[in-house]
Amino acid sequence: MSVDPVWNPGSGSGTAANQDPGAAAPSRPSRACRVGLLGFGTIGQAVARSLCERPRAGLRLTHILSGGGSRQKPAWLPADVCWTPEIYDILLSDVDVVVDLSPDDDQAFDGIRSALEAGKSVVTASRDVVARRGPELLALARARGCQFRFEAAVGGPVPMVAGLRDGLAGDRVRSLVGILNGACNYVLNRIEWTGGAFADALAEATRLGLVSENPDDDVEGHDAAAKLSVLCGIAFGRQILVDEVPRQSIAPIAAIDFQYAARLDCTIRPVACAERGSRGLTAWVAPALVPRGSMLAHLHGSQNILIATGEATTQTGFFGVGAGGRATAVAVVSDLVGLACMQPRFEGGLPVPMRAHVVTADAESRRYVRFVVRDRPGIIAELATVFASEGVSVEAVLQEPPLRGTELPFVITLDPCRQAAFDRALDRIAACDFHVRPPLGLRMLDPAMV
Amino acid sequence: MSVDPVWNPGSGSGTAANQDPGAAAPSRPSRACRVGLLGFGTIGQAVARSLCERPRAGLRLTHILSGGGSRQKPAWLPADVCWTPEIYDILLSDVDVVVDLSPDDDQAFDGIRSALEAGKSVVTASRDVVARRGPELLALARARGCQFRFEAAVGGPVPMVAGLRDGLAGDRVRSLVGILNGACNYVLNRIEWTGGAFADALAEATRLGLVSENPDDDVEGHDAAAKLSVLCGIAFGRQILVDEVPRQSIAPIAAIDFQYAARLDCTIRPVACAERGSRGLTAWVAPALVPRGSMLAHLHGSQNILIATGEATTQTGFFGVGAGGRATAVAVVSDLVGLACMQPRFEGGLPVPMRAHVVTADAESRRYVRFVVRDRPGIIAELATVFASEGVSVEAVLQEPPLRGTELPFVITLDPCRQAAFDRALDRIAACDFHVRPPLGLRMLDPAMV
Repeated sequence: MSVDPVWNPGSGSGTAANQDPGAAAPSRPSRACRVGLLGFGTIGQAVARSLCERPRAGLRLTHILSGGGSRQKPAWLPADVCWTPEIYDILLSDVDVVVDLSPDDDQAFDGIRSALEAGKSVVTASRDVVARRGPELLALARARGCQFRFEAAVGGPVPMVAGLRDGLAGDRVRSLVGILNGACNYVLNRIEWTGGAFADALAEATRLGLVSENPDDDVEGHDAAAKLSVLCGIAFGRQILVDEVPRQSIAPIAAIDFQYAARLDCTIRPVACAERGSRGLTAWVAPALVPRGSMLAHLHGSQNILIATGEATTQTGFFGVGAGGRATAVAVVSDLVGLACMQPRFEGGLPVPMRAHVVTADAESRRYVRFVVRDRPGIIAELATVFASEGVSVEAVLQEPPLRGTELPFVITLDPCRQAAFDRALDRIAACDFHVRPPLGLRMLDPAMV
Repeated sequence: MSVDPVWNPGSGSGTAANQDPGAAAPSRPSRACRVGLLGFGTIGQAVARSLCERPRAGLRLTHILSGGGSRQKPAWLPADVCWTPEIYDILLSDVDVVVDLSPDDDQAFDGIRSALEAGKSVVTASRDVVARRGPELLALARARGCQFRFEAAVGGPVPMVAGLRDGLAGDRVRSLVGILNGACNYVLNRIEWTGGAFADALAEATRLGLVSENPDDDVEGHDAAAKLSVLCGIAFGRQILVDEVPRQSIAPIAAIDFQYAARLDCTIRPVACAERGSRGLTAWVAPALVPRGSMLAHLHGSQNILIATGEATTQTGFFGVGAGGRATAVAVVSDLVGLACMQPRFEGGLPVPMRAHVVTADAESRRYVRFVVRDRPGIIAELATVFASEGVSVEAVLQEPPLRGTELPFVITLDPCRQAAFDRALDRIAACDFHVRPPLGLRMLDPAMV
């Protein structure tokens, strides 16, 4: 297809080519989706900042439950955001979506139920409420024609719920395997790297703020079991009782176990697993030996991962860092955007990309250049001179044993440089007479990006 | 929270506890979302089978464009599915969503545009149409109040579009790095493993059906550039011109490059990269050196991966096998489910999980048992006898040099056995008098699951 794209000039009322699609369009939705926050702790403040500082089409923060007492409305909140100690000011308002970020589970459940009963959609980060009473709240939402979303309750910012619900809805999931607790993953990683004791690794994880207020919630697998229960509801349409999930503590794992695991070509990870079998659903949370070649083995630090095996898709996975107030706020706001985009009664809708040219003078990158030459004195000096004259610094010269006598392969690595300078140098070098094969230049990816 | 959940008895009209939520509910949507297929090749047939053999609440296949000529309606299609050679039979029908699986890009574009103009939502797998004319079609969809979805056009069954659009909507993405072409990844993996030549690896990938009809589409990076362009539209709200993306062929990569890469603690992968910088958007598709520790380095065979780095979420990734008709059909059906669930005018909606008990007599698994004992003759024999009497076979006995003279650690691995038999054996063994620490039993995860 060689037709040039016709680009939409903006994200407003898009007009396509050769026509006026607006003419026959349904009446345009007229208002933003109004958001009320229950809870104004770390995540709540991050959500409020995200909504106020980077307003998104179709979303407007209108109410915050202040938590009562003498707490003052922060100066950075817009004047038109209602700051109230009374939940009824929110439930009886024109708020469309209530965001539950209550620290207390009973309070969270009451807030969610009241909001749904008032016909408001709900987004929550309350893990235990979703794990233990999710089906009941989903049924209530369905009956009231509103939505109940809970991405933040499971993988934090890793979109496990969206991935299973939206991405794999077309498959029949057979099994879920994952690392659902970042603190446990950090602790086991650290025992493996340092050869130290469990208690020391846990102390370090605690120091870094990775561990729950009640460490047993992580170490004994309660947190992972609750998350697994929610994921089973989405993947299998079956929700399992959290307290029925067999759990095993990571506390007895010692450095010696990693040595034995390595002899078995494995490592040890805090695994959550659920499987659909002929007799029903199997689920467990426990430290387990995982093959060194698996993605579970390669997860760093406090990352979380979920791998779903389906009938048609084999393995599909989602991973990322699973904690932190600002990161968890991303999951909450993503749920809000999803709600607002998908409902025709709100403005917003899916954004239409605008045209952008690719910048060719790109970011700097280290480079790898492989040469195959007929050896003669002075080649390296010649190459280094060309690179230097283009402002490119040689980092190292590497040489493996030659492939054949007349074909000498070697590699030069270069300090970070821009594409244009690199291309000019390589063009000049390619014109030299000593090449047996054209030089091959490759980028070396910045480890911070992957 | 100790309250027992109140479970929804089915996926029908859910009733929550102590009330009749239906009383004040909005009128229930009354009909399924009607689906028409344009294209009945491998993916089209897989989509049709999926919709007919495993009907989903809220989705009904009603029309198929037969492709003209004398092609007969297959016997397995239900009688009430309209089989027609005329696209107007579909465009003028009561179909709600048109699925475009046309083999030809111009035909696909015409079909999609006509469907959107007729007010029908569209799901497509046509990569180049979305990459080159996506913004125009999105604008048209928006103007007509319908949806345009294209998960299958990018990562096949790996939900990259859903992950970025739904999962990370709450963050501001800074960079995308990924492996978007499974054939190229397989080819480079194979050169690395076998030390063979590029041509041999490509021939093997072709034999396995991984390579496009026109191999240059994969090898020269056209396919990955088109996918990257679509992903940039979602992640950055900026769509880049496919032909502007600098591309580099994987054809010159040789086994020697993997040797040099290894010396640099790297490997080589077919990378697609886009980054938001101060001067605009940088994008490229090229083989590149990636750190051995990165997730990109650990992807097997023909898998695809996308890693997004956001301002709040650091790195979030999605991976899986990116090809195959049946797997691609999953992405199409997932988009259909998403459409049907999210629109209140259709029945269906998000499913409410039903109660399920965890099966404790779980699937068989290999086991690892670590002992720390005071050494004396006969311990292994004693352990083996107990395991045997519970029907559990010892696979191997491993021993590292002892930690201390009086504490002898060793490990026994067991052939696959069930949890109950394993627990009984371990309970009996724990009662023996030679333990310095309690024995530690761990599952060894089946490599097929991860």
